[in-house]
Amino acid sequence: MPSVQSDHPQTVRADACVPGFAAWLDTARSEVERALDTHLIECTTALGSRSRLAAAVEYSFRVGGKRIRPILVLECGRVCGGAGERAMPAALALEFVHTFSLIHDDLPAMDDDDLRRGQPTNHRVFGEGLAILAGDWLLAHAFRLVATPRYDGELAAALARTLADGTERMIAGQAADLAGMAEVTDPGLVRYIHENKTAALLETACRLGALCAGADEPATAALTAYGRHVGLAFQIADDVLDATGAAARVGKAVRKDAVVSKQTYPAAFGTDESRVRAQAEVDAAVGALALFGQRAGRLRELAGFVLARDH
Amino acid sequence: MPSVQSDHPQTVRADACVPGFAAWLDTARSEVERALDTHLIECTTALGSRSRLAAAVEYSFRVGGKRIRPILVLECGRVCGGAGERAMPAALALEFVHTFSLIHDDLPAMDDDDLRRGQPTNHRVFGEGLAILAGDWLLAHAFRLVATPRYDGELAAALARTLADGTERMIAGQAADLAGMAEVTDPGLVRYIHENKTAALLETACRLGALCAGADEPATAALTAYGRHVGLAFQIADDVLDATGAAARVGKAVRKDAVVSKQTYPAAFGTDESRVRAQAEVDAAVGALALFGQRAGRLRELAGFVLARDH
Repeated sequence: MPSVQSDHPQTVRADACVPGFAAWLDTARSEVERALDTHLIECTTALGSRSRLAAAVEYSFRVGGKRIRPILVLECGRVCGGAGERAMPAALALEFVHTFSLIHDDLPAMDDDDLRRGQPTNHRVFGEGLAILAGDWLLAHAFRLVATPRYDGELAAALARTLADGTERMIAGQAADLAGMAEVTDPGLVRYIHENKTAALLETACRLGALCAGADEPATAALTAYGRHVGLAFQIADDVLDATGAAARVGKAVRKDAVVSKQTYPAAFGTDESRVRAQAEVDAAVGALALFGQRAGRLRELAGFVLARDH
Repeated sequence: MPSVQSDHPQTVRADACVPGFAAWLDTARSEVERALDTHLIECTTALGSRSRLAAAVEYSFRVGGKRIRPILVLECGRVCGGAGERAMPAALALEFVHTFSLIHDDLPAMDDDDLRRGQPTNHRVFGEGLAILAGDWLLAHAFRLVATPRYDGELAAALARTLADGTERMIAGQAADLAGMAEVTDPGLVRYIHENKTAALLETACRLGALCAGADEPATAALTAYGRHVGLAFQIADDVLDATGAAARVGKAVRKDAVVSKQTYPAAFGTDESRVRAQAEVDAAVGALALFGQRAGRLRELAGFVLARDH
């Protein structure tokens, strides 16, 4: 897997360095995909087989994805003592919110992207109106997922509050990103956008997992910090990839940020300094896991993996 | 107040016929407005006073509204034994969902409206991207409102499920409306669109109120039926208004449905038959309230009031 750090040998390439990690990740992803498939069949059945809305909803899952957020929910639950299958509705809910955000972010009025994971974006296939509605539906449905009667009421309410909080922050970050275009690069604004647009949902993943496992406050705080740092590393890597990557490898258009004068790390700090900062975020993420000891091995590897992402 | 039935003297004009109803409605609306104002200040403080997202969110509440849905939540709670102030977060949540739906429905990719309540629509003031995000934020925040720690967990979870169910149905109805444009008028499809696009959220209002009051199954079923019939009456009246109303009185563009070949009652059944059907829905709504006796007086009047709407 090509890495955005391929010319920086001092950085950790977790996917390459840790035996068994890739296999573990594949297994975790398959577990999520199976649950997702089952749930999507329920959704499309409820909406009706001829529903264009159902087709639009399904499309954006079928084009694939790394499923990092639901995997994080499940693994954080495990690290906190094991939420097991109990965490799956919350994990799926977060992937629904993530998928909603991708559909809306790709719209012409936002990032105006024609490709996502090498496939036409939702609005290119179904039209803008239906793409907006598919995103809306996914967002509403995410809350139905965490409010399932399978959860004790207090847990369901806490999951819904946490999911709403993360989603609101993500939207506020995207709004700041949109408003920040064509303005003078502002490092404080870049940080705000990254902390909210991207990090908020990864933080939320960790908090949902901790909630499902009934984790105590120190464990929850540690995982929240881990999620924030991973999220920041993830978005910095994405910015660097946009500035340096090749469209074919990335599966979407690149070098778009500079064209529309987005507030990015490379614009604020330069590409080399951005790589250093991304690595520092990974290190901070790993540091936040100290209290979990050996149990957090996979989470440590996941933190490094986000830097090795190529899409 | 001009009525869409002004040339049909046989129909009930509840606002004119029932002494005290208009005053009661004003009081109920003021109560909602006060709670809404207080909550919006909290929202804009949290988002930051310079936030364009906060301005966009606030704008769509400031242009006003009848607040029928939150009033229904509160009144259904009262009729079921009194939820009192307890129902207010659920009432506001529903108004947030309704406002999100108006912002998205007005977008160029949907109904493409420039005016709403006589004012420029959200995207005309803030741009399409921010309008989409403002709607998204309102939807997420609605679930934070019902998941408040002020509610017992089981109640919060039930409210979230009910709100998600109503919102999903509304979105599915809007998707069918969008897909149905320029197709041959189909009475079955018209009914599906109305039951979901509009009636689902009015049903939801009644169910949220019943939940907050801890209503039993017969009371909840009766109010659900009431909400569905009121919703159908409401949407038929809206279709008739579009076909016959004047833009200045309505506060938005009219005679648009026919231009874009929407699936409407007047298109399917003619204007006169549509008025008869709207009245039949009001009668059915009133009939559903039998078990509440005198307590449901205001709900009966509200059912008639929706036919007298002029915006």
